[in-house]
Amino acid sequence: MTVRPTLAVVGATGAVGTVLLRILSQRADIWGDIRLIASPRSAGRKLAVRGEEVEVRALAEDAFDGVDIALFDVPEEVAAQWAPVAAARGAVVVDNSAAFRRDPDVPLVVPEVNPAALRRRPRGIVASPDCTTLTMIVALGALHAEFGLRELVVSSYQAVSGAGQAGIETLRRQLSLVAGTQLGTNPGDVRRAVGDDTGPFPEPVALNVVPWAGSLCDEGWSSQEMRVRDESRKILGMPQLPVAVTCVRVPVITTHSLTVHARFEGEVTVDKAREIIATAPGVVLCDDPAAGEFPTPADVVGTDPTWVGRVRRALDDPTALELFVCGDNLRKGAALNTAQIAELVAAEKA
Amino acid sequence: MTVRPTLAVVGATGAVGTVLLRILSQRADIWGDIRLIASPRSAGRKLAVRGEEVEVRALAEDAFDGVDIALFDVPEEVAAQWAPVAAARGAVVVDNSAAFRRDPDVPLVVPEVNPAALRRRPRGIVASPDCTTLTMIVALGALHAEFGLRELVVSSYQAVSGAGQAGIETLRRQLSLVAGTQLGTNPGDVRRAVGDDTGPFPEPVALNVVPWAGSLCDEGWSSQEMRVRDESRKILGMPQLPVAVTCVRVPVITTHSLTVHARFEGEVTVDKAREIIATAPGVVLCDDPAAGEFPTPADVVGTDPTWVGRVRRALDDPTALELFVCGDNLRKGAALNTAQIAELVAAEKA
Repeated sequence: MTVRPTLAVVGATGAVGTVLLRILSQRADIWGDIRLIASPRSAGRKLAVRGEEVEVRALAEDAFDGVDIALFDVPEEVAAQWAPVAAARGAVVVDNSAAFRRDPDVPLVVPEVNPAALRRRPRGIVASPDCTTLTMIVALGALHAEFGLRELVVSSYQAVSGAGQAGIETLRRQLSLVAGTQLGTNPGDVRRAVGDDTGPFPEPVALNVVPWAGSLCDEGWSSQEMRVRDESRKILGMPQLPVAVTCVRVPVITTHSLTVHARFEGEVTVDKAREIIATAPGVVLCDDPAAGEFPTPADVVGTDPTWVGRVRRALDDPTALELFVCGDNLRKGAALNTAQIAELVAAEKA
Repeated sequence: MTVRPTLAVVGATGAVGTVLLRILSQRADIWGDIRLIASPRSAGRKLAVRGEEVEVRALAEDAFDGVDIALFDVPEEVAAQWAPVAAARGAVVVDNSAAFRRDPDVPLVVPEVNPAALRRRPRGIVASPDCTTLTMIVALGALHAEFGLRELVVSSYQAVSGAGQAGIETLRRQLSLVAGTQLGTNPGDVRRAVGDDTGPFPEPVALNVVPWAGSLCDEGWSSQEMRVRDESRKILGMPQLPVAVTCVRVPVITTHSLTVHARFEGEVTVDKAREIIATAPGVVLCDDPAAGEFPTPADVVGTDPTWVGRVRRALDDPTALELFVCGDNLRKGAALNTAQIAELVAAEKA
């Protein structure tokens, strides 16, 4: 009998960690010990996973002793410091932060799209993509395999939980201030109601949309936009793929949505595109506007797949498709993808 | 002394009509009599315009006697029936509905972009564009004049007031049901809270985004998407311009936002683009992400211009610009544009 691998969850008490524990309780149980690790201030708390209460340990070097695979759901700077520590102790690290995604010695893996990339991991670290990239990349990977991508133009409708628990709480506080009022039709009234309480966002998000996510990069691009471009290229193995992205925060708690204009090598047909989407693993076709069927965050939240709707061929370009894509940013967009990577690593070792 | 023209406002009690009366009270007063007209059930109500109370008259043939210019802010089917009646009685009709926009004998006018189109109006009717088209077309007209447009890819973030007063009330009711709750992270919980109360929308709009606006056209396109394409082409005089659009409703009361990927004839520079945007009439440049400056509906609502931010050159295409554009859909997106057209018509006659 093979010994079941020991899994560590680092950042078990955060927004993504919480969802990860739920996912680990739902998927086929291949794990021996599941060790929960968090910052020292959360140590001693007990969290439920696989129907058992598990005590949270403080993040420390010896917390990784005997760990086979460590899932990191922590801020970038924490991952940058601690992932190499865990790897040095022999764990394969699956990191959900941006700390290692651009490192050429760290594979960036989406199990449905580029599982083979997992094999080469000289640092013992595997990165999981940004939640916005993950919202579209499974569906695009399937379409690319058939049609050959040539260009992407993407706009996002990003949920506040992409900014963690603080994002969720900020929107909920702001909604309580504006609900039941007549605010929203006069200059500045939402801003006055919300005051300076914008949490992790640069502007109010209730009754508003905010065209900014992340930090400022060169020439006016946001780090979120650069990630979608760079990560899509790396995952698809197309370092020259033209990708134009604008990222916008919307007042949705969880589930990112994206509009995608995807141009391919040659002519595409909607029928073939729908067939690919309907049969691709991890993707659901939800596209019958006559019956009121298209994906929305309210229906997609809490589910695992990428939901694709509004599939149209561009009216003026037979090589381009228009799509509207939704995915739960805490599940496939974060926790689920890391769990899937961990399962692939465990399968290698078995 | 010239006699001041008589203006009629048809649909004075609606969401757009209400804003129009406010705009008429704010702009230079060139009008003689301003006559307010609405459905018989609103007749007899008194509304304020130019600081005076004016009694609303019922829509009827003789209501247009002596009217020089009639602004129609009514549903499409009402406009289709009554605009020709008003025109037959000698009024120049400025219609804000979709009823006549595609008619080759009806000019579709944006005063900053194609004022000359106003001259040829054989039916005595002038159409004002859809609010989503108007959100971007003033800025794009200015950029087109300099760079020459070749292609547009547009995604919308449309406010609920685009669906009229019923849209506003629906979002407010739904917000009262979800504010102060923990809803939004579990499958279907927003839908259950909102129930069947989706008003003019096919899905809940609170804590959600809905990739649908208008009715179903051929091949899965929505009427709203077709309007943005067809109207942009007509206003710019470019019947072959490739335009790909996805329209999405967001939980914002008033002010539409759009992401625009605009490809031009040759190379563009961000500096020149910013100069054009900063100096174009009716357009404001709001673009300094380092200082947290980009337009959002909360700041733009209640203002007249098109606000443009996030101006970037596509990283992989020196001929393309990325923009984020906001405009108050009830002001420039509807009432203001019709008032501006009426002023141009009045100036002809003076």
